[in-house]
Amino acid sequence: MSAQETYDALVKECKELSLLASTASILYWDQHSYMPPGGVAFRAEQLSVISSLTHARFTDPKIGDWLSELEGSDLVKNEESVEAVNVRELRHQYDKQTKLPTDLVEEITRTTSLANEKWMEARQKSDFKIFLPWLEKVVDLEKKKAEAYGYEGEPYNALLDDYEPGATVDDVIEVFKNLRNDLVTLLQKVKDAPKKPDVSIVEREYDVGLQKIFGESVVASMGFDFNEGRLDITTHPFCTGIGYGDTRILTRYNPNRLNDALFGTMHEAGHGLYESGLDKVTHFGTPMGESASLGIHESQSRMWENQVGRSKSFWKYYFPQAQRLFRKSLAGVTLDDFYAAINNVSPSYIRVEADEATYNLHILLRFELERALLTGDLKPADVPGEWNERFKKYFGIEVDKDSNGCLQDVHWSAGLVGYFPTYTLGNLYSACFFNKALEDMPDLYEQFERGEFLKLREWLRNNIHKHGRKYRATKLCEKVTCKPLDYKPLIAYMNAKYSEIYGF
Amino acid sequence: MSAQETYDALVKECKELSLLASTASILYWDQHSYMPPGGVAFRAEQLSVISSLTHARFTDPKIGDWLSELEGSDLVKNEESVEAVNVRELRHQYDKQTKLPTDLVEEITRTTSLANEKWMEARQKSDFKIFLPWLEKVVDLEKKKAEAYGYEGEPYNALLDDYEPGATVDDVIEVFKNLRNDLVTLLQKVKDAPKKPDVSIVEREYDVGLQKIFGESVVASMGFDFNEGRLDITTHPFCTGIGYGDTRILTRYNPNRLNDALFGTMHEAGHGLYESGLDKVTHFGTPMGESASLGIHESQSRMWENQVGRSKSFWKYYFPQAQRLFRKSLAGVTLDDFYAAINNVSPSYIRVEADEATYNLHILLRFELERALLTGDLKPADVPGEWNERFKKYFGIEVDKDSNGCLQDVHWSAGLVGYFPTYTLGNLYSACFFNKALEDMPDLYEQFERGEFLKLREWLRNNIHKHGRKYRATKLCEKVTCKPLDYKPLIAYMNAKYSEIYGF
Repeated sequence: MSAQETYDALVKECKELSLLASTASILYWDQHSYMPPGGVAFRAEQLSVISSLTHARFTDPKIGDWLSELEGSDLVKNEESVEAVNVRELRHQYDKQTKLPTDLVEEITRTTSLANEKWMEARQKSDFKIFLPWLEKVVDLEKKKAEAYGYEGEPYNALLDDYEPGATVDDVIEVFKNLRNDLVTLLQKVKDAPKKPDVSIVEREYDVGLQKIFGESVVASMGFDFNEGRLDITTHPFCTGIGYGDTRILTRYNPNRLNDALFGTMHEAGHGLYESGLDKVTHFGTPMGESASLGIHESQSRMWENQVGRSKSFWKYYFPQAQRLFRKSLAGVTLDDFYAAINNVSPSYIRVEADEATYNLHILLRFELERALLTGDLKPADVPGEWNERFKKYFGIEVDKDSNGCLQDVHWSAGLVGYFPTYTLGNLYSACFFNKALEDMPDLYEQFERGEFLKLREWLRNNIHKHGRKYRATKLCEKVTCKPLDYKPLIAYMNAKYSEIYGF
Repeated sequence: MSAQETYDALVKECKELSLLASTASILYWDQHSYMPPGGVAFRAEQLSVISSLTHARFTDPKIGDWLSELEGSDLVKNEESVEAVNVRELRHQYDKQTKLPTDLVEEITRTTSLANEKWMEARQKSDFKIFLPWLEKVVDLEKKKAEAYGYEGEPYNALLDDYEPGATVDDVIEVFKNLRNDLVTLLQKVKDAPKKPDVSIVEREYDVGLQKIFGESVVASMGFDFNEGRLDITTHPFCTGIGYGDTRILTRYNPNRLNDALFGTMHEAGHGLYESGLDKVTHFGTPMGESASLGIHESQSRMWENQVGRSKSFWKYYFPQAQRLFRKSLAGVTLDDFYAAINNVSPSYIRVEADEATYNLHILLRFELERALLTGDLKPADVPGEWNERFKKYFGIEVDKDSNGCLQDVHWSAGLVGYFPTYTLGNLYSACFFNKALEDMPDLYEQFERGEFLKLREWLRNNIHKHGRKYRATKLCEKVTCKPLDYKPLIAYMNAKYSEIYGF
């Protein structure tokens, strides 16, 4: 075969495998939206067979042979060509995947599907005992995964790379340290500040039906296309890009808190815009049609949630509409008071409901526990105790029940150990990208005040989405912003916002 | 390998293929319930890859070798053993499937997925031209399928066997002829009868929300378990058994007709009870865990819809509840008048809304057109003209628009040519089975009057569901009723019902 023929065969195989994997996305979406509870055991079998099938086919030695042949060919000479990017990234995936035995992959899929149901039950009853045996199984399997991959330094590096290719614990620790120092200073200023937002404004009765209408209208104005997507209800919000023309987001509503669903929905819609902004019609099934990393993915969701959704400009446009919908709860409330309320900084239990300033402390805690679970320094049975002790130390409050503590997040039940740091990376990237967007479009905030968000969507499409996985995250950041990743833009953005709100 | 080892390998492979096929069931369910419209092209790709993959694996020569080895072994000596049944039925499927080229299977799947969307659009706009090119493609592909299978007599036999294994056109013609003669006599009696139901009773305003409540409560009392199933809304009602613990039915509501959703939902729930009554925990993936035939499947849905749902006894229990829900529309209506109204016999356009007496004429018409399309005596472009001419002849009324005529049913767009006769077979089987159930439980109607339906469900489970595909349809009928399939029980049941209602 010529190099071109080999490349075409590789792409054809990858597309077919991605089509199979995309049926698993529908199975997962269905499991967390509409599936009857009795279907869980069978669903685990379905997911397991697809996972092991795609794993077995992607790790077939012929893929390795094809890659080797292509790596020596002219087809990949230009390292930014579609072919070169796809070969480079498929090689990275192939090398990792071939290290995982099919049995292990299958066991992880089956176990996490059942663990997820147990986690949901445990969370609902706030009973860690229900989840413990499954957490033990997951941790054990994740350790096996790290050993199979191999790693330098600690086992955590092997897992982190799955979500943030090329990143290591040492990088993350460095970023966290700098960020934490400045965050601590910021939080102290907030604590000592003379002004305090009246957070009760957003903790009144907010009719779920009206919240739905409001959220849908916001998401539509962001450019999320309901002709090619859906918004549904679930326990733990997420977004899944099924394929071209089909991107789905899921949220949850709290009748007594406006923030949860609204910012949660904007967050997932930010992921959704990234998914639908990838050129899947041309590149579906290959890295060029996939997101750069989870950190970059998160930068999109956090930008829409925070830099846009929690901005004064956004609410100059939307607050009058919100007042018309939520007549009673927002009667007599001023824009400034509302703006302060949605940006209130205060330690709270639930990560996905946390304010921007404390959010990264939630991540830090999980990251520390995960590392200790993998090294064996922490036993799964000791997670609640360790969680609660650290929580007290970082946030200054006692965890009242495990559903507000170590049972709150879906990740461990889903086998997503190593995933959490990407949230903080996402926050850092979002601030860097948004700064550049402001530089390129100095009237961006004026656009928001007029309810115009499509130019930002276009900017993101052109600068980030359309590249797929052409550039690794750190390189993409440099390409877009002309600077390496930095924690300062995030801190500067927060200082500016909170000094106004809190008057320091 | 020993025969047992070979058998185990065969079952393992079949289970894995059925798990893959079951993901296609979820894709199909999703396409017809929640998928955004923009997802249709990608969905076609997904379905196509699963279909070609399962086809390629099931037609692997090793399956044929395994079957040959097992056919000569002691394992299948007892022809009613699980092993013998599975080997017999897998051989039947394997021989048919190996005759279909993978390309053709893939093309059929891709074409019908797109044809289905075009059919929906054509039906909505009542514009046959939109559907015509797709009908031509489907008919062409179905002809190719019949040629690939091979057949005795006419090509239709090859396709009918897919849905009703072992049945031939000659059998169906014979059954139809006898049934038709008696039906014509019955319909004439109805036409000349002195009493006429006041059908306007069920054509008043029926709030969709209340219809939903009523339908769900009826279906629950039938024993459909909402913990292991769902009821959703779609364009063309259907039921899909995803796997153990997950059986889904879909219906549609008409705010101005009570019958459509109510009996449609009971119908689909009848299918659902069969699906959930199969022993899938033990036999999933093998013929022993699958339904005997579509005719038998239809006998279950029609029994719940007609013999139960349209019985006087059922309404002795449910009419007071219906009156409480639909206060205005059922105020002052007597049970007898309501019972007559839901059993009104009159020619109408839509098959799924037809009364029991005219229903089989709808089937006859489709059956005739299908045969002619396959032999080439009828061109797809001439379908509307031919449909409307025959409709006038059989039903005495003019078709006003194609959405009330040849565009009403999903089957042709889905490539289900040869399927329609199974509906009439279902009606015939349902009457035979119900007679036997009445013989075994003489107080059955008294049970209905008390709102008790679970003993009938148990009877069906024990006599029909649990056997899976152990017996072919005709043999199952003999096993259950001690008699061969006969059209007389259906005619006798109708004569008894309609002579009371119409006073002849």
